Amino acid sequence: MSFRTKAYAATSATAPLTPTTIERRDVGPLDVRIDIRYAGICHSDIHTARSEWGVPPYPIVVGHEIAGVVAEVGPDVTKYAVGDRVGVGCMVDSCGECEYCKRGDEQFCAKGNIGTYNGVGKDGQQTQGGYSQSIVVTEGFVVRIPDSLELDVAAPLLCAGITTYSPLRHWNAGPGKKVAIVGLGGLGHVAVKIAHALGADVTVLSQSLKKREDGLRLGADAYFATGDPDTFKQLNSTFDLIINTVSAPIDVDAYLSLLAVDGTMVNVGAPEKPLSLNVFSLLNNRRSYSGSPIGGIRETQEMLDFCAGHGIGAEIEKITAGQINDAYDRVVGSDVRYRFVIDTATL
Amino acid sequence: MSFRTKAYAATSATAPLTPTTIERRDVGPLDVRIDIRYAGICHSDIHTARSEWGVPPYPIVVGHEIAGVVAEVGPDVTKYAVGDRVGVGCMVDSCGECEYCKRGDEQFCAKGNIGTYNGVGKDGQQTQGGYSQSIVVTEGFVVRIPDSLELDVAAPLLCAGITTYSPLRHWNAGPGKKVAIVGLGGLGHVAVKIAHALGADVTVLSQSLKKREDGLRLGADAYFATGDPDTFKQLNSTFDLIINTVSAPIDVDAYLSLLAVDGTMVNVGAPEKPLSLNVFSLLNNRRSYSGSPIGGIRETQEMLDFCAGHGIGAEIEKITAGQINDAYDRVVGSDVRYRFVIDTATL
Repeated sequence: MSFRTKAYAATSATAPLTPTTIERRDVGPLDVRIDIRYAGICHSDIHTARSEWGVPPYPIVVGHEIAGVVAEVGPDVTKYAVGDRVGVGCMVDSCGECEYCKRGDEQFCAKGNIGTYNGVGKDGQQTQGGYSQSIVVTEGFVVRIPDSLELDVAAPLLCAGITTYSPLRHWNAGPGKKVAIVGLGGLGHVAVKIAHALGADVTVLSQSLKKREDGLRLGADAYFATGDPDTFKQLNSTFDLIINTVSAPIDVDAYLSLLAVDGTMVNVGAPEKPLSLNVFSLLNNRRSYSGSPIGGIRETQEMLDFCAGHGIGAEIEKITAGQINDAYDRVVGSDVRYRFVIDTATL
Repeated sequence: MSFRTKAYAATSATAPLTPTTIERRDVGPLDVRIDIRYAGICHSDIHTARSEWGVPPYPIVVGHEIAGVVAEVGPDVTKYAVGDRVGVGCMVDSCGECEYCKRGDEQFCAKGNIGTYNGVGKDGQQTQGGYSQSIVVTEGFVVRIPDSLELDVAAPLLCAGITTYSPLRHWNAGPGKKVAIVGLGGLGHVAVKIAHALGADVTVLSQSLKKREDGLRLGADAYFATGDPDTFKQLNSTFDLIINTVSAPIDVDAYLSLLAVDGTMVNVGAPEKPLSLNVFSLLNNRRSYSGSPIGGIRETQEMLDFCAGHGIGAEIEKITAGQINDAYDRVVGSDVRYRFVIDTATL
């Protein structure tokens, strides 16, 4: 039992994404069927569509920044009703039984959580993502989008928002803390807004000063160009927390040198190849280098509520389905301020 | 004003250490003159003597695991009296004014702490270490050795003890925590004793099972050979904390894979060359890779009191001055169980 919905799919690593229809399962007892209104374009989508993280089973529909409206609920659903404004992020299911699932850290599910796309659902079917008009998700992996957040600017929060909110909270960004955000892109610009709203002193570290005005407008207290070697001298031992949103290879030791005593640099993405690290960079000032993957469902809801409370949405360029392939090239070229969001009515 | 004392010095990177006499300053108002009874041999001594960490000013007297008895105190000294059993570790002074010094973390002194050897004291003189019969140190950098600890087994605690105690405490080793100690050498064997006394579940990760019986006797709950690839499969995502006492290059990603969610691997030493690190190792399980340098003076006293309370001393081989050069070769060959301690009466 199933139904079909319009979507945009990648059919090979090199072909442009093309219109298609895909099958979705019928609504089960605990399922929510969502009319997708907007889907953000995350760099992960591109990596997956282009086989840069291994070859996915083609055709594949990517997209894990989903905002929409509940169209149908299963008989046992208690959290949502038809008409509710909801979102889905990077996960659509997990074992639900391990210690991590039980405490709401589904991203760490001992059996591995089920990705919104390029995963295998509990029904054995390949999961397909948000570049589509409808999706069916178990209610435990659906979050509520507060009324004060527009659906289009909320969509990117489902990945870019939680991926930065989670480490900012985990490593206690807040008043009295000096936080640096490396990279002012899709993740970075949301990180600046959230870190500022949390009360931290926020510095943007970007390759050039090109986006400086934007950075300050978004809430940064300072903005430095990492292309200028003086930056690293001037900011030596300064930050309590560095959130590195850049997945390209960086000079880790140079960035670690910016951490104060007990400071932590957290990567929220990773370059494909290993980095070179001088352990003395960690011994000095008792520094830490960490990684943080997305966040749990409970924390994703908390993030949305926090963003709504502080008027935080993503800065977006809304596009039609026909613009997706161009948008991909522009994301790769860092030519977007700051997130593309697909109007799924145009699929 | 100064006096001379017997010592053993390195005169070049390649020559054996030889007997000599060195100058010590006279006791100032806040100084303590210590008759050194025992000095531990730390691998750092060898790195320094052999110019492996840069070329020190020769001749140099190394040694920063010092245990002895107070022989004289300056007029303003309040903490110690003649006859007190005391120790000196890796630092003999710091600025005393920065936020780190003020809170007792002199190891992070903003102006740089003054090393027990190969440093420059506030008097402008090169500092000389513990392979000598007498040393003069400002009272703030002298710690008390509790009566229940013999001076010879206490000496190595001044570096090996605090270097492992500090990260074990900082990262909350204790009941319910799974802690792995990498390397059962000078630092590792003390780390096992301390982690066990703190109530943690302790696993030794050593290249082979050669020292397994020792490891279990010292307090380990389990012992695995890292030379066996199965070890890494079997212990995947197991530990909350890994203390890596091995300064030789390791496969960082393999060791990080042993960390559970939110686990941390802490290096207490560093290989000379950069390591290769795959950031995905950190993203998985939100892991951290950290470094920890020695510990502050207050914490060193706390460590000695803790060790005394739990009957913890180093396992030592006591040697005469004439055996120092042989001992160096044996340390480099990992042929010591577990720390050489020089009887300074033989200098």
